[in-house]
Amino acid sequence: MRPSGRAPASLRPLRLDPGYAKHAEGSCFICFGDTHVLCTASLEDRVPSWMRNSGKGWITAEYGMLPRSTHSRTDREAARGRQSGRTQEIQRLIGRSLRAVVDLKALGEVQIRLDCDVIQADGGTRTAAITGSWVALFQALDKTLGRTRALAALPDHVAAVSCGLVEGQAVLDLDYAEDSTAQADANFVLTGRGGIVEIQGTAEQAPFSPPQFLELLGLAQQGVAELIVAQKQALGLPEAS
Amino acid sequence: MRPSGRAPASLRPLRLDPGYAKHAEGSCFICFGDTHVLCTASLEDRVPSWMRNSGKGWITAEYGMLPRSTHSRTDREAARGRQSGRTQEIQRLIGRSLRAVVDLKALGEVQIRLDCDVIQADGGTRTAAITGSWVALFQALDKTLGRTRALAALPDHVAAVSCGLVEGQAVLDLDYAEDSTAQADANFVLTGRGGIVEIQGTAEQAPFSPPQFLELLGLAQQGVAELIVAQKQALGLPEAS
Amino acid sequence: MRPSGRAPASLRPLRLDPGYAKHAEGSCFICFGDTHVLCTASLEDRVPSWMRNSGKGWITAEYGMLPRSTHSRTDREAARGRQSGRTQEIQRLIGRSLRAVVDLKALGEVQIRLDCDVIQADGGTRTAAITGSWVALFQALDKTLGRTRALAALPDHVAAVSCGLVEGQAVLDLDYAEDSTAQADANFVLTGRGGIVEIQGTAEQAPFSPPQFLELLGLAQQGVAELIVAQKQALGLPEAS
Amino acid sequence: MRPSGRAPASLRPLRLDPGYAKHAEGSCFICFGDTHVLCTASLEDRVPSWMRNSGKGWITAEYGMLPRSTHSRTDREAARGRQSGRTQEIQRLIGRSLRAVVDLKALGEVQIRLDCDVIQADGGTRTAAITGSWVALFQALDKTLGRTRALAALPDHVAAVSCGLVEGQAVLDLDYAEDSTAQADANFVLTGRGGIVEIQGTAEQAPFSPPQFLELLGLAQQGVAELIVAQKQALGLPEAS
Amino acid sequence: MRPSGRAPASLRPLRLDPGYAKHAEGSCFICFGDTHVLCTASLEDRVPSWMRNSGKGWITAEYGMLPRSTHSRTDREAARGRQSGRTQEIQRLIGRSLRAVVDLKALGEVQIRLDCDVIQADGGTRTAAITGSWVALFQALDKTLGRTRALAALPDHVAAVSCGLVEGQAVLDLDYAEDSTAQADANFVLTGRGGIVEIQGTAEQAPFSPPQFLELLGLAQQGVAELIVAQKQALGLPEAS
Amino acid sequence: MRPSGRAPASLRPLRLDPGYAKHAEGSCFICFGDTHVLCTASLEDRVPSWMRNSGKGWITAEYGMLPRSTHSRTDREAARGRQSGRTQEIQRLIGRSLRAVVDLKALGEVQIRLDCDVIQADGGTRTAAITGSWVALFQALDKTLGRTRALAALPDHVAAVSCGLVEGQAVLDLDYAEDSTAQADANFVLTGRGGIVEIQGTAEQAPFSPPQFLELLGLAQQGVAELIVAQKQALGLPEAS
Repeated sequence: MRPSGRAPASLRPLRLDPGYAKHAEGSCFICFGDTHVLCTASLEDRVPSWMRNSGKGWITAEYGMLPRSTHSRTDREAARGRQSGRTQEIQRLIGRSLRAVVDLKALGEVQIRLDCDVIQADGGTRTAAITGSWVALFQALDKTLGRTRALAALPDHVAAVSCGLVEGQAVLDLDYAEDSTAQADANFVLTGRGGIVEIQGTAEQAPFSPPQFLELLGLAQQGVAELIVAQKQALGLPEAS
Repeated sequence: MRPSGRAPASLRPLRLDPGYAKHAEGSCFICFGDTHVLCTASLEDRVPSWMRNSGKGWITAEYGMLPRSTHSRTDREAARGRQSGRTQEIQRLIGRSLRAVVDLKALGEVQIRLDCDVIQADGGTRTAAITGSWVALFQALDKTLGRTRALAALPDHVAAVSCGLVEGQAVLDLDYAEDSTAQADANFVLTGRGGIVEIQGTAEQAPFSPPQFLELLGLAQQGVAELIVAQKQALGLPEAS
Repeated sequence: MRPSGRAPASLRPLRLDPGYAKHAEGSCFICFGDTHVLCTASLEDRVPSWMRNSGKGWITAEYGMLPRSTHSRTDREAARGRQSGRTQEIQRLIGRSLRAVVDLKALGEVQIRLDCDVIQADGGTRTAAITGSWVALFQALDKTLGRTRALAALPDHVAAVSCGLVEGQAVLDLDYAEDSTAQADANFVLTGRGGIVEIQGTAEQAPFSPPQFLELLGLAQQGVAELIVAQKQALGLPEAS
Repeated sequence: MRPSGRAPASLRPLRLDPGYAKHAEGSCFICFGDTHVLCTASLEDRVPSWMRNSGKGWITAEYGMLPRSTHSRTDREAARGRQSGRTQEIQRLIGRSLRAVVDLKALGEVQIRLDCDVIQADGGTRTAAITGSWVALFQALDKTLGRTRALAALPDHVAAVSCGLVEGQAVLDLDYAEDSTAQADANFVLTGRGGIVEIQGTAEQAPFSPPQFLELLGLAQQGVAELIVAQKQALGLPEAS
Repeated sequence: MRPSGRAPASLRPLRLDPGYAKHAEGSCFICFGDTHVLCTASLEDRVPSWMRNSGKGWITAEYGMLPRSTHSRTDREAARGRQSGRTQEIQRLIGRSLRAVVDLKALGEVQIRLDCDVIQADGGTRTAAITGSWVALFQALDKTLGRTRALAALPDHVAAVSCGLVEGQAVLDLDYAEDSTAQADANFVLTGRGGIVEIQGTAEQAPFSPPQFLELLGLAQQGVAELIVAQKQALGLPEAS
Repeated sequence: MRPSGRAPASLRPLRLDPGYAKHAEGSCFICFGDTHVLCTASLEDRVPSWMRNSGKGWITAEYGMLPRSTHSRTDREAARGRQSGRTQEIQRLIGRSLRAVVDLKALGEVQIRLDCDVIQADGGTRTAAITGSWVALFQALDKTLGRTRALAALPDHVAAVSCGLVEGQAVLDLDYAEDSTAQADANFVLTGRGGIVEIQGTAEQAPFSPPQFLELLGLAQQGVAELIVAQKQALGLPEAS
């Protein structure tokens, strides 16, 4: 029995609220249970200097947590004067994940910055951030380039979920209570067509075996399929897009 | 006629949502129109080293803006590696404002950190932050010390509002459209008993005269009285407290 | 009776020494009693990038304290690797105060940097810095643009003084002994024509009332008038300029 | 045909030189072909403050590249004043990988810092760093605790290798020429008993399929087995240890 | 003929003004011609942690330049967020030079910080700083320990001067005009008893020969002897002390 | 008798290994006994902005130590976020020393960066770095400009050695055991034609006398002559070059 009462293959209650932010070209407030992340997409006319005149666009991401999004207060990174290694690792992951499904040529020479800010944390913030960022990105492309060019530039979905071994059981979408006691956990970033974009697996207490790893992958494929349905519903996209 | 259609002495639509944050000892999501600020109060057992064994507590504040809370994206301070002068000025102001109504002795040797994070900005973020922080602070004291000690430690309200001269007219609670064209503006931090805690007045285009300044102060007294009523309602405190 | 033996409305002994610094385009060594600040004005041909081709100039200010300008030694900000919030607040105030009386168009596309370095501190360093910076700025304009264009670019004076409530009494130009025991204090930046440029009032121990605040403003108006006479004398400007 | 002429399942020429560093408690100069990494293990009597009196030890790692270890010069991180996101990600991976096979209780209250410095880079620096760090760590434990306690504290091997899809072919131990053209690649950190400690897979150009991912895992298992034989030979440990 | 009209072996006009700073335990405003440096000595009860319980004291130094002490404005190090290599080199030199003549045991467990701030620069700021720091240090010891213990803790003088080869001629105490055209220059830190504490010689344009170097040393010995006479006069010490 | 058994005027065993680094234009792994430094020279097409269109090239140097190159581990500067004063002092010295023998005009508008990284430290790292950098620089010029232009741009050798007074005896090329007990030591940077490029002498325990200093200079002249012979042999240059 999971602390939340969920079945092993159940996601937490899911909420996607596109257009939450008044000023951003695209945005999505996404909740995986008590994990709440605000994702915004900001369009800029200039690409980084190393990409000038390449005819291609660029996607980059930044991640942050509000100081009291966590159980006990976490120091503010702006006050400490540096982003932690964990923050940098996560924002690099978000950026790579989105770029994997974007056609940078079709984007044209623009840069889109995704900002993922954790308003409340209860495990799985990076997977919620990736899932919500896809929605914010689609909205920004749709609004600024039009639907046809948006679909050309972003031809596939990407979404992410964590899976882990908790008390010997493979479970989907870990909350904080599970995350902090898991023997092993992994984050899976998968596309709408079933491809693997990123896998990050870590044995927290004991190494895991290849069959265990495959079981987690199976759970993730099912969870991501559900997340992608939710992305489509939130944006009013046809189910078969 | 103001851009928002408001009368000169009208506040924007006000929303105070105490207890918004699941993990914090106290919190308030506060909206002055389209300006949205999440204020949390975090209690810590340790005071700063220079206060040890003084028998007194301490209140401090930090302030931040989400990168896309603003019309165009603002660089993330954590990524730049330093807080701007504006950020530091605002968080110092919030801390001083709250300390002015706290009895640090009655607090006991604890520290409370107020985090004010701007989720969406449309002018007046610092005044919303002060007004919401009082609610978060009261809630944290109430929850951890009990109602009696909370009232002893926080015997008066504090709230803040901006006023300015826009096209020759004195107006209350400027939004961004007014703020960016004001000839002069001022932030007033006032107590429930009518005392002045902080005044910051700045001539943006032309110096203002003492009578003009007094007119702004009058508007502020009226606006702050309304804000304090809203604080009481949000927390279920009796009107005469 | 004030610790210094001054009457409530008396400034400290005043000294303004223009041209103190050999290399700067303009400079003023200014003393408010034992508070000594060296103000220099440095002219640069380039404006900040966001002002290029605007046909306008820019004025900016930086502030610092020598480590042992204070009663006990203050850490060197260059060694700590960051300027404190107080420093940034003060240098932003100095810049705004001077810009309020400059015609940036008449200046032409140049930048003038004001550096205010506290050689010795005894309260009121920011007000001395503003008052001395006006002199340094005028001298730099006079020397590089000629008297006529200088008067066009800088058509009014600005000077500043602090006032406060000390043991229930309103007093002018607080020294450190008064500043550290004041119930409330405020800094007033006023023009030669009597306009308010900046007001910063802070209740240190107890909120102050609007009539008390007005009393402080009255003292400040009188003090600033004396400071502006001293600015004129130091520069050899006619009294009625 | 691979650029290096290797078969798909072949490692590059391998060299492990334990005790390379005169001052360190343990060290290993490790070469995966033209990738050369110096790993040192430094023993300290103090654990981090959050572990004091836990009876447990701690293992941490730092990673760096000499500026001209790379094809074109890379800026020195010490000169830039911050470690890159990539550096932090790699050093966190090295630390987690080693901790996964250490019995922190058996270690006692000491901290061991692993420093992995890339002298020359040709792809796979993080996998070489993990493989060499295990040798440096064993040597440090052996020298300071004795063989019996070293084996108790470090009861299993850990080693790492990269695999990737290059021109549609799954290959083992990518060098730079392959790494920069791979469609996808993954780093596998595995134990001597066949357990998975860390998996990091990234699709560089196109998402990869689950069966492709399993093929890479199979190559990695074979490669890590060879690396662990080399670790034993370098340290003179019996093959069946 | 030197630009200043001085003879090759002549110092610039010298001024030493001990006790210039109101708050510091010891201070000296020192002028080598147009080079003006304010040196203060601040006594602290605590030594650095690595010296605790050693029974010995410590002397350390910091150096800075006001932004417009130089011909054209130099960026403020506090604003840039780091001290330059030149600054660090100079402050390390000042600290070593003073420690060379202090009996750290006789000092007792206190720390004295010397702050050397350049108010105006015209060449030779580091040598003026060392020479003035000795005076500030003596004054601080005299005031806090008494004359007898001061003489025990600081049993010898130290002073410094630069020499260089300018247009083939060896000259003493270079000003900026000479410094910027010198073929080679050197800074000499010497004691009252004629010992060498520090020598830093640098060939700016062409290597210099050992006999040339000896000629510079001879000039320095003469110049330092004059500086030490001035130190004694400034402090009212007997000439033969 | 020296700790190493060497005669007072003996260098440590010397090894120069040019071309050690695969990617760099020029490189030299240099050993002064147990002090091992890797020097690389990296050629860049762009000079610093202040040199553009001067027709001249530039040489600059950076220095670093691996954390466990030292007896006990030294904190990694990249992790601390700043280079120490010692590091900056040394890299400035290396740059000046090399520039003193380069004809920047003959170099053309390129920049060469020398990176000197200490793999193992046992005293004298800066002198080894200078001596090895000359070899790396020559190799880079030879490879990119050809032998004739290389000899025009680098017409003289430069090498460096330390000397010191240890137990009253003047000795050459101090190792760590001697360095840490020396009364005084000095670093000498000399050219192939006998000129002095840099001298840095420091009295560690007691001031030294001019004759003692001359004795150290004599030892250094002899030591540098041997180092220059070794530079020529390593590069296959004729002895009389």
